[in-house]
Amino acid sequence: MANFKGHALPGSFFLLFGLWWSVKFPLKYLGRKTRPGCHASSRPCYSRIELAEGVAKAVFSLVGILAEQFVPDGPHLWLMSGEKHSWVKLMNWQHSTMYLFFGISGLVDILSQTGPRLPLGLDRLALSLAVFIEGFLFYFHLHNRPPLDVHIHSLLLTAVFGGAFTIGLEVFLRDHIVLEMFRASLAILQGTWFWQIGFVLFPFRGWQTWASDDHGNMTFITMCFCWHYAVSLFIIGVNYALVCLCVHMKSKKDGGLELGNLKSSREKNSQLSLLNGSDEE
Amino acid sequence: MANFKGHALPGSFFLLFGLWWSVKFPLKYLGRKTRPGCHASSRPCYSRIELAEGVAKAVFSLVGILAEQFVPDGPHLWLMSGEKHSWVKLMNWQHSTMYLFFGISGLVDILSQTGPRLPLGLDRLALSLAVFIEGFLFYFHLHNRPPLDVHIHSLLLTAVFGGAFTIGLEVFLRDHIVLEMFRASLAILQGTWFWQIGFVLFPFRGWQTWASDDHGNMTFITMCFCWHYAVSLFIIGVNYALVCLCVHMKSKKDGGLELGNLKSSREKNSQLSLLNGSDEE
Amino acid sequence: MANFKGHALPGSFFLLFGLWWSVKFPLKYLGRKTRPGCHASSRPCYSRIELAEGVAKAVFSLVGILAEQFVPDGPHLWLMSGEKHSWVKLMNWQHSTMYLFFGISGLVDILSQTGPRLPLGLDRLALSLAVFIEGFLFYFHLHNRPPLDVHIHSLLLTAVFGGAFTIGLEVFLRDHIVLEMFRASLAILQGTWFWQIGFVLFPFRGWQTWASDDHGNMTFITMCFCWHYAVSLFIIGVNYALVCLCVHMKSKKDGGLELGNLKSSREKNSQLSLLNGSDEE
Amino acid sequence: MANFKGHALPGSFFLLFGLWWSVKFPLKYLGRKTRPGCHASSRPCYSRIELAEGVAKAVFSLVGILAEQFVPDGPHLWLMSGEKHSWVKLMNWQHSTMYLFFGISGLVDILSQTGPRLPLGLDRLALSLAVFIEGFLFYFHLHNRPPLDVHIHSLLLTAVFGGAFTIGLEVFLRDHIVLEMFRASLAILQGTWFWQIGFVLFPFRGWQTWASDDHGNMTFITMCFCWHYAVSLFIIGVNYALVCLCVHMKSKKDGGLELGNLKSSREKNSQLSLLNGSDEE
Repeated sequence: MANFKGHALPGSFFLLFGLWWSVKFPLKYLGRKTRPGCHASSRPCYSRIELAEGVAKAVFSLVGILAEQFVPDGPHLWLMSGEKHSWVKLMNWQHSTMYLFFGISGLVDILSQTGPRLPLGLDRLALSLAVFIEGFLFYFHLHNRPPLDVHIHSLLLTAVFGGAFTIGLEVFLRDHIVLEMFRASLAILQGTWFWQIGFVLFPFRGWQTWASDDHGNMTFITMCFCWHYAVSLFIIGVNYALVCLCVHMKSKKDGGLELGNLKSSREKNSQLSLLNGSDEE
Repeated sequence: MANFKGHALPGSFFLLFGLWWSVKFPLKYLGRKTRPGCHASSRPCYSRIELAEGVAKAVFSLVGILAEQFVPDGPHLWLMSGEKHSWVKLMNWQHSTMYLFFGISGLVDILSQTGPRLPLGLDRLALSLAVFIEGFLFYFHLHNRPPLDVHIHSLLLTAVFGGAFTIGLEVFLRDHIVLEMFRASLAILQGTWFWQIGFVLFPFRGWQTWASDDHGNMTFITMCFCWHYAVSLFIIGVNYALVCLCVHMKSKKDGGLELGNLKSSREKNSQLSLLNGSDEE
Repeated sequence: MANFKGHALPGSFFLLFGLWWSVKFPLKYLGRKTRPGCHASSRPCYSRIELAEGVAKAVFSLVGILAEQFVPDGPHLWLMSGEKHSWVKLMNWQHSTMYLFFGISGLVDILSQTGPRLPLGLDRLALSLAVFIEGFLFYFHLHNRPPLDVHIHSLLLTAVFGGAFTIGLEVFLRDHIVLEMFRASLAILQGTWFWQIGFVLFPFRGWQTWASDDHGNMTFITMCFCWHYAVSLFIIGVNYALVCLCVHMKSKKDGGLELGNLKSSREKNSQLSLLNGSDEE
Repeated sequence: MANFKGHALPGSFFLLFGLWWSVKFPLKYLGRKTRPGCHASSRPCYSRIELAEGVAKAVFSLVGILAEQFVPDGPHLWLMSGEKHSWVKLMNWQHSTMYLFFGISGLVDILSQTGPRLPLGLDRLALSLAVFIEGFLFYFHLHNRPPLDVHIHSLLLTAVFGGAFTIGLEVFLRDHIVLEMFRASLAILQGTWFWQIGFVLFPFRGWQTWASDDHGNMTFITMCFCWHYAVSLFIIGVNYALVCLCVHMKSKKDGGLELGNLKSSREKNSQLSLLNGSDEE
């Protein structure tokens, strides 16, 4: 779907996941610090959240695949047209392939939560692979396009491969809050940049089209990508602050009921965070 | 051997090893989890399996070298033809070189199991080097070929260098199940992709040949590579599930005999897996 | 500001930070070794120093942004000139963007020291991102320039991306003295190289201009970059030696007062440094 | 010195160091395993060996710099010839620069052994930087050369940058025997390859010169590089086996004197090697 909608749709999905992660990870991290006794990822509520995330990913991917195949001008599961042996709607097939790997990642998430015997870190590997395949297909997709088109997609690849690498690191450094927030920021960047690509390549009626070989445009677009990232960092920061506030309010409210308990757990907490610090070193 | 057989043969070897690994590693991992008291890699049965794998690798490599040298149109150990000082059958020599390094890897495997003084991780380094050299020779081998040929081999290189890197990581993160399953999936991918290269570059009589500079073909081949990987992941998943089932059945059967023992070991197991989890973080 | 001053100014900032780091990190490291009981980064004096560094970074960045925008020939916050829809002073906007990310890094430093709930390592990530964005913008900035100009900036990129990578590693290996001294040496290199770029591209009146396509010039410039680094290493070495001497003098002076205490702490120290050594292995 | 001698000389140095390392590291590793109580790197005899290595590096580098400057057709410390402001003998200056960084590495080695306050890992960083700078200068040195010349040096770069990366890893994974043996193998490869470059680019009188643009030559050279590495691995293996034998003989001879002591230390050893194994995981 090489039109505005075809970029806005995946952009919205990435934005949604990025925003969700920018709330989930701080919540998990600060919750872990406040109640250090119980390990966050072993709590049933987190398990249910992970499960829901996996289901959402799998459903979105399935919808994506079906949409790409059965839109009116889609391939309807035909790969070759019989007479001339020519390929049918390769672009739609390519997008279906991308969705397929995100679907696999969703499936692994679900199995990780329901089946107790999957090794830790497999969910991260599957997500990392899905993002890598997305970048891989984009990379070979850029051949023979006008310069501005190539450049604007290359910038996207920075975010995509950066994300794949970060999630790949999480296989080994699980629940590392800095990596997780970095991942969230890259997902938001990817989301907003998909929208930007839509606006640049398919301007609305009445808007000026972008000259494809103007050097000024290239320079501006590069800079604009950095601004998108600055905005993404800002969103991450605001969400972190809000979560911080919520957790603080809640722990205060709980304080009236279990004051003595809390106080001693706080002391433990401060010790633990120190230990944690030196652990992470 | 630039023909269909010359691609199907190594493809079959990689496929075989990939399938074998996709059974061996889960077996080792789940066995370790079920009987946590004894460290898997120190048990004599695993040692014998590793030894057999090493011997297989060494024998296959030797056969490969001899085949490449002494097929009717091979170089028969001649490197230069006397009169004109021109090189003799460099392609066969190149393949022999690839086999040589897999042979070295097999030898290191054997020595690691029989000689008790080889440092841990050397076997992984030798295998990683063998795969790297394979990719290295392929990379410089692509010069001056038609575009489709270059592209289809470049895709192979992604799997090869990815494999070399993963096995290289195993030098430091030994017995890491996620890395091992990833390695197995890349080996299967490499195996099936060698077959695909054979089908594309040397189509059977009556089949349509592939236009070498058609952009649609390039796009399809890239996508097809991703589908191969999806199939590889599916095979890995099925094998993991089967192994899981077998281990479960066996531990149930053993349960009748040594019930009390098992129960306490299971409790230990659940604690250990938690520790294991936080260890891996 | 594509003139001598526009290179000398950022060069001076990097030089300043590099020199400061080449004193701060050894001081912190040797202080930690001498008084092993108290963890350096938890002491209030170090916290104040980090805070001051953050404030300095933020203020410098703000000044930089304002200067780039409001110099007489700056864009004065205009991005497009109304009539022809052409971009206004993109170079100044680009430099403002670079400063923006260093400002964000400064802000994160400040929040890390004042707000107690920011995760460890976020300050390093923010600095790493700022340096990466600097390199990222420079990289796309080099298009369509004369060969010597491209080459001299490419060399700078080695230092920039090396720095971004090193600081990125510090997210996981916090307070690793070798990484920190390496970072300091790259900052000094970047500082002096900015000055060198200024001298080469904008020679003073009466000086010979550099032929842009002379191969000898290219070779010399590459070599000259290595000499700059040798000088940077020399400065790092001298500063380390001076700090070493100061710490030794001070611990001797303190020795008169708390002799018995020191002696036992020294014994502990030597044990600790051994442990430390095996920890870092 | 762009002649045979100019390649044979550095080749011999690298070969010498590689051979020395292929003996030193196994000796240190097996010694550590046999007498697990005392940590190898803290023993005075190893300290003296490291010191001698540092002095050798520093002296060789100094001799190298002086030779490059003061050979009859050298620059004699002149950088520009006065009249035409043209560069003097840049090749010799470039080689001097390479030697300079190896000299710095030697100096850091010496200071690490004599001055007790240098942080662990700095010696590895300095050596890694020296090798990196060597590769860095080589890389920019290849511009405008005939294809075979570029290719044969590119292959060298694989060994050089591989070595720099490996030694860089040793900053964090100090005394890791697999990394150390890999480093030694790359040093031997570099040494023999320098000789090979000499033979190819400056053939002796009466030998056939190599056609610079023949594709067969390129393919052969790539393969030949792999053979060099196979030989290097073979040398490493033989040296390891010899050291193993010597240590075994010596521990047997010592056994007569301190039998009881040895036996218990061996038991400890086997436990330790297990722990070691799981440590390295």
